[in-house]
Amino acid sequence: MTASAPRIARLVVVGVGLIGGSFALALRAAGLVDTVVGVGRGRANLDAARQLSIIDRQVQIDGDWAAELAAADLVLLAAPVAQYPALLAAMAGRLGPNTIVTDAGSTKQDVIAAARAALGGAMPRFVPGHPIAGTEHSGAAAAFATLFRERNVVLTPVGETDPVATATVAALWEACGSRVRVLDAAAHDRIFAAVSHLPHLVAFGLVEAFAARPDADDIFRFAASGFRDFTRIAASSPEMWRDIALANRDALLVEVAAFRDQLDRLAAMVAAGDGDALAAVFARARAARREWEAKYSPTPAAMAADGPRER
Amino acid sequence: MTASAPRIARLVVVGVGLIGGSFALALRAAGLVDTVVGVGRGRANLDAARQLSIIDRQVQIDGDWAAELAAADLVLLAAPVAQYPALLAAMAGRLGPNTIVTDAGSTKQDVIAAARAALGGAMPRFVPGHPIAGTEHSGAAAAFATLFRERNVVLTPVGETDPVATATVAALWEACGSRVRVLDAAAHDRIFAAVSHLPHLVAFGLVEAFAARPDADDIFRFAASGFRDFTRIAASSPEMWRDIALANRDALLVEVAAFRDQLDRLAAMVAAGDGDALAAVFARARAARREWEAKYSPTPAAMAADGPRER
Repeated sequence: MTASAPRIARLVVVGVGLIGGSFALALRAAGLVDTVVGVGRGRANLDAARQLSIIDRQVQIDGDWAAELAAADLVLLAAPVAQYPALLAAMAGRLGPNTIVTDAGSTKQDVIAAARAALGGAMPRFVPGHPIAGTEHSGAAAAFATLFRERNVVLTPVGETDPVATATVAALWEACGSRVRVLDAAAHDRIFAAVSHLPHLVAFGLVEAFAARPDADDIFRFAASGFRDFTRIAASSPEMWRDIALANRDALLVEVAAFRDQLDRLAAMVAAGDGDALAAVFARARAARREWEAKYSPTPAAMAADGPRER
Repeated sequence: MTASAPRIARLVVVGVGLIGGSFALALRAAGLVDTVVGVGRGRANLDAARQLSIIDRQVQIDGDWAAELAAADLVLLAAPVAQYPALLAAMAGRLGPNTIVTDAGSTKQDVIAAARAALGGAMPRFVPGHPIAGTEHSGAAAAFATLFRERNVVLTPVGETDPVATATVAALWEACGSRVRVLDAAAHDRIFAAVSHLPHLVAFGLVEAFAARPDADDIFRFAASGFRDFTRIAASSPEMWRDIALANRDALLVEVAAFRDQLDRLAAMVAAGDGDALAAVFARARAARREWEAKYSPTPAAMAADGPRER
């Protein structure tokens, strides 16, 4: 993807949270956007986004926000995925003839199905996307311009997607500092069920079970840095992760079942006192984790850009 | 525990790794130790410990290291717990009349049983301990003097333990900057099975299963910061964690079974499309995680002291 990024005279961001807000700030920092229109449910969050110069003007989701679409060059859907069907239905027939729509949803097959059901003739200008970035914080106040730097952004165009629309969206993400990757939507959903959705379910589940125990106070008092890192993602948005778990239900259940089998296998080794087998599993895990760290882990520079993460 | 820390003319550290080495460095920094004798299996690690001024002299574990014990004020056992029975047997009858022995093992009931079996009349001067600190790095080169600052150290004295010995060990850990807590050994093993041993098993198991998949390359390519934190502990020492899993087998299997039930419960919610139930679980988890973060998480100062962690 080497197209140069076009100038965006009007960007409409539906859902001005961490992702939508950071995208607007990154395009502003790149000097690529003139006017940003923020659309959302909560007035307080939109007010904050305007005070932080993330957006130039705001429209409530229960107002006539679709009136902003005809003159928009680009629309980014960055709301929780469960709201997509209603949002896409409201957009249908209101988009300009050249308006490109993209999204930031963590699941892609369900988003594509919703877009196909709603967009009709505008479907070729819908580019399904997923920026692989985020923190456990949410809302416009958590947004920052460097969130996407050195991060992957996955695009999952389908047969009818206009390649020019895909190239435009790719060029804009690259202007945000991201690496753009193209994947089949089903492969995307399988990969992220494993590498992201399952770990979130596990971390949420572990912490919730601990909190319900009679010895919860002792458990939490002695939890240390291993627990801190392992459960950081359990501080993520409940609403967003409910939507993801349901939107990617089938792939997630496959991963839960596979992980359960692995847990049973390890428990059997512990029960049998099979130290050699356990040490072999742990050693393979450590080698794979170290290889991942060396090859793929966000660089220290990208981590420093996480600024707001540890607030 | 308000006893003032005594001066240690001779400290013997058996196992000069991250924990043993950092204890020696912390006592040196506090000006409380004259001579540190390092005992270990590997010559290269002991050489490194001497070059780093962690220890003053070294004895190989297959040499007559027990000859150092008669004149020792304090012995710290910081080797993998599976080696304790042989180490304690080698110590029996060689300790000085006032030598105090303590340890840094992550499990306590098995350590106490091994000490009772080996130490005979010296058992009252054995103070079982567990510093709740560490990084995923190991070896003397990973040691640093501030590792234990603002961290909990759990002591689990038993009926026959001399309270003066317990108070002495407590005062030394406090001189390292630690908070000392006293727990019953069975409670200790139950708490740490939940809050530490289970998460390690889960993280090791997840990464090992991913590495064995045909789509491992894709999985790892798209893993991001959530995966990084969730699996950091999967880079820990396989040998140490094999020993812990087996030493605390019964308590760990109870936790694995409880966690498996929780996973089944969540999978049923996903399968049924019960978004309300999922969101409620996730919200309770987030609230508990945030409360933990505010109340118990290592402070930024203590985290900065982690220096070597992210090397």
